[in-house]
Amino acid sequence: MKQSQLFTKIRKEVPAGEVSKNAQLLIQAGFVYKEMAGVYAYLPLGWRVMNKIIEIIREEMNAIGGQELFLTALQSKEIWEKSGRWSDEVIDVWFKSQLASGTDVGLGNTHEEPITALMKQYVHSHKDLPVFAYQFQTKFRNELRAKSGIMRSREFIMKDLYSFCKNDQQHEKFYEECKQAYTRIFERLGIGDKTFVTFASGGSFSKYSHEFQALSDAGEDIIYLSRDKNIAVNEEVYNDEVLAELNLKKQDLEQHKAIEVGNIFSLGTKFSDALDLTYIDESGEKQKVIMGSYGIGPGRAMGTIVELCHDEHGIVWPESVAPFRVHLISLLKEGGGVADQMYKKLTDMGVETLYDDRDERAGVKFAQADMIGIPYRVVISEKTLEKNAVEVKKRNESEARLVLQEELYSLFV
Amino acid sequence: MKQSQLFTKIRKEVPAGEVSKNAQLLIQAGFVYKEMAGVYAYLPLGWRVMNKIIEIIREEMNAIGGQELFLTALQSKEIWEKSGRWSDEVIDVWFKSQLASGTDVGLGNTHEEPITALMKQYVHSHKDLPVFAYQFQTKFRNELRAKSGIMRSREFIMKDLYSFCKNDQQHEKFYEECKQAYTRIFERLGIGDKTFVTFASGGSFSKYSHEFQALSDAGEDIIYLSRDKNIAVNEEVYNDEVLAELNLKKQDLEQHKAIEVGNIFSLGTKFSDALDLTYIDESGEKQKVIMGSYGIGPGRAMGTIVELCHDEHGIVWPESVAPFRVHLISLLKEGGGVADQMYKKLTDMGVETLYDDRDERAGVKFAQADMIGIPYRVVISEKTLEKNAVEVKKRNESEARLVLQEELYSLFV
Repeated sequence: MKQSQLFTKIRKEVPAGEVSKNAQLLIQAGFVYKEMAGVYAYLPLGWRVMNKIIEIIREEMNAIGGQELFLTALQSKEIWEKSGRWSDEVIDVWFKSQLASGTDVGLGNTHEEPITALMKQYVHSHKDLPVFAYQFQTKFRNELRAKSGIMRSREFIMKDLYSFCKNDQQHEKFYEECKQAYTRIFERLGIGDKTFVTFASGGSFSKYSHEFQALSDAGEDIIYLSRDKNIAVNEEVYNDEVLAELNLKKQDLEQHKAIEVGNIFSLGTKFSDALDLTYIDESGEKQKVIMGSYGIGPGRAMGTIVELCHDEHGIVWPESVAPFRVHLISLLKEGGGVADQMYKKLTDMGVETLYDDRDERAGVKFAQADMIGIPYRVVISEKTLEKNAVEVKKRNESEARLVLQEELYSLFV
Repeated sequence: MKQSQLFTKIRKEVPAGEVSKNAQLLIQAGFVYKEMAGVYAYLPLGWRVMNKIIEIIREEMNAIGGQELFLTALQSKEIWEKSGRWSDEVIDVWFKSQLASGTDVGLGNTHEEPITALMKQYVHSHKDLPVFAYQFQTKFRNELRAKSGIMRSREFIMKDLYSFCKNDQQHEKFYEECKQAYTRIFERLGIGDKTFVTFASGGSFSKYSHEFQALSDAGEDIIYLSRDKNIAVNEEVYNDEVLAELNLKKQDLEQHKAIEVGNIFSLGTKFSDALDLTYIDESGEKQKVIMGSYGIGPGRAMGTIVELCHDEHGIVWPESVAPFRVHLISLLKEGGGVADQMYKKLTDMGVETLYDDRDERAGVKFAQADMIGIPYRVVISEKTLEKNAVEVKKRNESEARLVLQEELYSLFV
């Protein structure tokens, strides 16, 4: 894409009233736009990043047998009353509204109830199980405070997968597969080395749930990390009994602030009891379906990546999620020509390139490129042209190097 | 995908209370699920179709310079009060709610106001124009009645593009390009031959808007069509003055019911006046930005395709939007073997294939395949195997033909 055509502009000033680093950097560089407190629109650059994150998650969910669907935001009171979660005292982040007829409706903040009700139409026999269904769907949560930028917002896209199994064994098998898939996802998102499987409270049907916690001072959680064992314990279950059970010693654990970037949860029969989701087993007996839920917020993941991957000059995107792979910057006084050809060739090769064809000073272009954070900066100027070369610098390196023009392309094959 | 793993099942009975043909067929064949009246979830098959429609629209919007972003559903009262559209008397389909703090919020039923407010941050000079920005975003409309299935629902995905131009000339040029793009979209969706550019009421800033109307008895609009001139006139502007202006004669026009599958609208300075979106022109003068809006509902397009493309046995998807290209049906008594290999080979070739590997009678499989409506039905049985062949039937043809196994693949190259 030609940068002269990108409608967003870089803002020098830090946006007023924005305390989180992720929102500051993302707003300044034109990735997101604050619609109101805790409500962010995604601008072209940000939407490209979001879609890369979504595609990585989608691939990993499909690889473990997930079937993608798309539930609705509007929720009827009836099914949530069955589980006892319609009440604002039970779920304190409901947005509610009314149909023109006066009937109450809610905006989905999670989707256990509707998907359990939906599965009643399709699950009857043990042969219909297991089912793993997921979606990328906007959730609405009426948070009283929203100070973590895009990491905790009032409206956000969530990947939520729900598993439906005939027994604990089938459930445990998938739960473990999903845990592995989540590990792969965070590796592919470029934050695998800072993200740890963390034992957390399990609710009524399971001793533990598992969170994926990314170490960051911007986090809202406290975890205790064993680097040796590569696991952590959330503060909420950090006690002698749990440590003994996990064979962890207090003195080996590091205390960290951390961001919960994913969680997986055994639900047992909580929702299949409430909504009566049953199947007929091999011996003709009626049984309750065993459920699990598995969440990742792509927006929160994006915010976490920004928190973990930036320096004093701006964002440093991991290649897998960067909005473009190459930032081609022309400093040629006569626009077009060689730079245009280079842009065309990169684009034809399928290398996603942002082409800074604007009439701007070099210093401005470099500073703005650092703020946007594309992995490869390729500069073409009169000086480099004399040597039939371009200057290549990776965003996470300090030194640029000259690369002959004809060798440039092989960097991206 | 193996059909044995698809969690949805075919329903023989017509869903109770569903009067529209599109919703009946889509629910029966497992494409959509009715969450409540006018609110539909998209199941794996339906979500595949939706994404194909979205991708076709996206390609055409990008081709005319559209930049994709993603605005928010939650809307603040302030910006809508500026345009006078917060009131329920002006827009009678608002869903409204409140933040935990008590502040009123609405759910976006369209997005002129927020995108105009957003552009104030990025549009300052004539050099910043034109801008064409679009999104695929869930809209909420509190319709009193919702009887047209997925064609008019209370919650639906909409592609809405907004154009921002410096003068009428720049606006008219894009308006025409978008009209051509819409024509290509409906051709690619397989309903081009039944969809006509239709002159409709233009509001305060323009004599006409243009609708894309698909002829169908399921439509809610009445249009008057000139086949000769390949244009139509919406009932709302069907009068002597308009007919004279368009050089149409009453006796040459056919009256039809039709579905509005798209519309393009010149907004003039209505919203840039209300929200004060200005730019500095070449001579240093402040000017108002000229806007346009351009909508297509992918869900409504999907419903329209079903209304236009079905027979007494079920849906007949155009190839461009079908959930799969091939429905491979094995009638082999011993499962697996040759059919498995064929499925693998088709999949490896990149041919999207639904593989009916279920233990079901041939009659059931055929009837259900017709309901699902995939373009190519490929049947393998002991009988066809004797001839080293498979039986191929297109969904819109009545006769099947034998094709040698090795020749099958060349059909899909």
